[in-house]
Amino acid sequence: MGNRQSIITLLTDFGSQDYFVGAMKGAILSINPSAQIVDITHQVPPQDIPAGAFSLLASYTVFPSGTIHVAVVDPEVGSQRKPLLIECAGQFFVGPDNGIFSWICEREGNVRAIHLENEKFFRHPVSPTFHGRDIFAPVAAALSNGVAVEEFGEVASDYVRLESLAVKTEAEGQLEARVIHIDRFGNCVTNLTRDHVSEEAFKTGAKVSLNGRVVGSVRHFFAEAVDPQNDLFCIFGSAGFLEIAAQNSSAATMLAARCGQRVLLVANRGN
Amino acid sequence: MGNRQSIITLLTDFGSQDYFVGAMKGAILSINPSAQIVDITHQVPPQDIPAGAFSLLASYTVFPSGTIHVAVVDPEVGSQRKPLLIECAGQFFVGPDNGIFSWICEREGNVRAIHLENEKFFRHPVSPTFHGRDIFAPVAAALSNGVAVEEFGEVASDYVRLESLAVKTEAEGQLEARVIHIDRFGNCVTNLTRDHVSEEAFKTGAKVSLNGRVVGSVRHFFAEAVDPQNDLFCIFGSAGFLEIAAQNSSAATMLAARCGQRVLLVANRGN
Amino acid sequence: MGNRQSIITLLTDFGSQDYFVGAMKGAILSINPSAQIVDITHQVPPQDIPAGAFSLLASYTVFPSGTIHVAVVDPEVGSQRKPLLIECAGQFFVGPDNGIFSWICEREGNVRAIHLENEKFFRHPVSPTFHGRDIFAPVAAALSNGVAVEEFGEVASDYVRLESLAVKTEAEGQLEARVIHIDRFGNCVTNLTRDHVSEEAFKTGAKVSLNGRVVGSVRHFFAEAVDPQNDLFCIFGSAGFLEIAAQNSSAATMLAARCGQRVLLVANRGN
Repeated sequence: MGNRQSIITLLTDFGSQDYFVGAMKGAILSINPSAQIVDITHQVPPQDIPAGAFSLLASYTVFPSGTIHVAVVDPEVGSQRKPLLIECAGQFFVGPDNGIFSWICEREGNVRAIHLENEKFFRHPVSPTFHGRDIFAPVAAALSNGVAVEEFGEVASDYVRLESLAVKTEAEGQLEARVIHIDRFGNCVTNLTRDHVSEEAFKTGAKVSLNGRVVGSVRHFFAEAVDPQNDLFCIFGSAGFLEIAAQNSSAATMLAARCGQRVLLVANRGN
Repeated sequence: MGNRQSIITLLTDFGSQDYFVGAMKGAILSINPSAQIVDITHQVPPQDIPAGAFSLLASYTVFPSGTIHVAVVDPEVGSQRKPLLIECAGQFFVGPDNGIFSWICEREGNVRAIHLENEKFFRHPVSPTFHGRDIFAPVAAALSNGVAVEEFGEVASDYVRLESLAVKTEAEGQLEARVIHIDRFGNCVTNLTRDHVSEEAFKTGAKVSLNGRVVGSVRHFFAEAVDPQNDLFCIFGSAGFLEIAAQNSSAATMLAARCGQRVLLVANRGN
Repeated sequence: MGNRQSIITLLTDFGSQDYFVGAMKGAILSINPSAQIVDITHQVPPQDIPAGAFSLLASYTVFPSGTIHVAVVDPEVGSQRKPLLIECAGQFFVGPDNGIFSWICEREGNVRAIHLENEKFFRHPVSPTFHGRDIFAPVAAALSNGVAVEEFGEVASDYVRLESLAVKTEAEGQLEARVIHIDRFGNCVTNLTRDHVSEEAFKTGAKVSLNGRVVGSVRHFFAEAVDPQNDLFCIFGSAGFLEIAAQNSSAATMLAARCGQRVLLVANRGN
């Protein structure tokens, strides 16, 4: 195991109006008063596991080795779904076993997964409606205090996965991708990366299509000189994914785009 | 006095759009640069003292002994209302004397209350519109530095109280409670606890009524198997209070419920 | 150079829904794991540089000497606009060179400005869409670790300035000011201070006018006894500026006020 930091990040769908996030922080600080707690976001749309998964996927690599990430988007709290601890990429991930960490595991590989079974590390009594406070926060705090991963439970034989981020080869020179996230500006984030297409390729004819609309324009940054012929354009966003964006407008609205919709990438084949 | 932590929580109705919360943190860090500052919430509805009181009541117990809680929902800032420091339950509470801490005092007892009179611990000049920055934050920071409680002012002979959380006996087998909070999901939180009724009691006939509607169904967690006959159900929330909730809907809207409204609990009397 | 704190404040227009603020914090903690990070606000209206400038102007003085302020309201990110480091008033300011710090520089004077050119202190690869994470946060973290200001780049011959906050003398006894900010309550903040007018002066006849409406009433705090003749009143806000406010209402709406509009102060000339 790498070096252990006492940095603990929190990502939830709890919003900021109630006491829920504060209570999770209190639970952490009761166990490790010197934890460095960082909010990723608490505005994940309620119960939207892929949205939470995307925000964590887009940010975990910025944190130092040993960081502990707690993610609680947990519609099945209190049911039989299991609490999970993942170690991969030199970091730790604590939350419900519902797929919220699976995109990170898929990208990183070399995953150690534990189902949290050792109730010694829970806060008691455990509320059936608030595992964030009573299971995930205390486990993260214990981890930050140096408790070994194997003390929290047995190695999990498997864990829940969201639909893979892998892109499919549709035909020669064609890749089938999809919209994996729509941000608050209406930018449509796809699962295409620089491994699949470059800015240069767009300049020599590559195009993406979504809902029947073809986009071949590309920009390096948002405020780049405008091409009035192309209100829609492609741009590599700061999370490393290709996004379809619009000039001072919502691409998602213009395209009637939704998460999960098919995006086709067609390379320039010389015609 | 118990051990003193340098954990300082903040709860306000300032919202997150302005510089107000940041300024309070700056005032704290100018006095104790190593304070561990935790936000409970800054989205208390403007000037809604009971809503702020509920959020703190629902979360203070999670924090370690010695934690200092600053709560600023303060419609009378600048007037003759007094600034208050409470010590109880091994923790400290700093804010306006308007009842915001009274539910905690009522539950815990053994309260030491001080009116903040020693201007040595204030930030000068004191703005008549921003005691959060100029009185409450600096006092909390001084407290976290180890200043003794009695240095901040004289013991207060009394302090302002909100309406008691005690439940009244209406008749034999009947308790009169009320709605003390409505959360953002529309769940109606009552002042009934496991001291008054159990999940088992509901299963054997206990019922609550609110605005003429009777609710006898009970759930252990929100995602529990649905009873299509009962769109409304009771559930013990994570703050320990009985809540009236609805399946994927707002119970408050369905019941036209408002804070303060009467909730009647009727035990099963064998009929 | 004064004493260096490891307090780093953040002010952006990123909102709280996405991972952007979390990523900036990760970038800081990767370089200085013990940085004390404080949010001023992330709800600056998108791309509204003066609004961000006002929030920082209203709060930086509360922070201790050596504090590092990072402000990212950056519509031109990725373009030729330069990244900037300012040292003044014993504090540090890191962000785009677009005027966001210029009101502080104007007030404080004795400014040292550096354009950030030393890429050694950037996070690589630098995303052209996210300098907050890849330039400003890492530079702030390096600064908090003790790197000398001159190591980040050359002294800047000049920097971008917003319209001055200076008040103009319109005629004898008349000052021309303007609305510099409208807060979420609709209070209209002007660039008039106690250097220009006192509460006493209002009581002896001074008046301000905005959009044809004359306001001569003044209050010391918001909950002061109401004068039913005067729904609008003047008050010195907690940032030190004269504000035009309304009784339980939005002065901005009542006055159809917008940022930048002219406010005329007329002293009592004995008539």
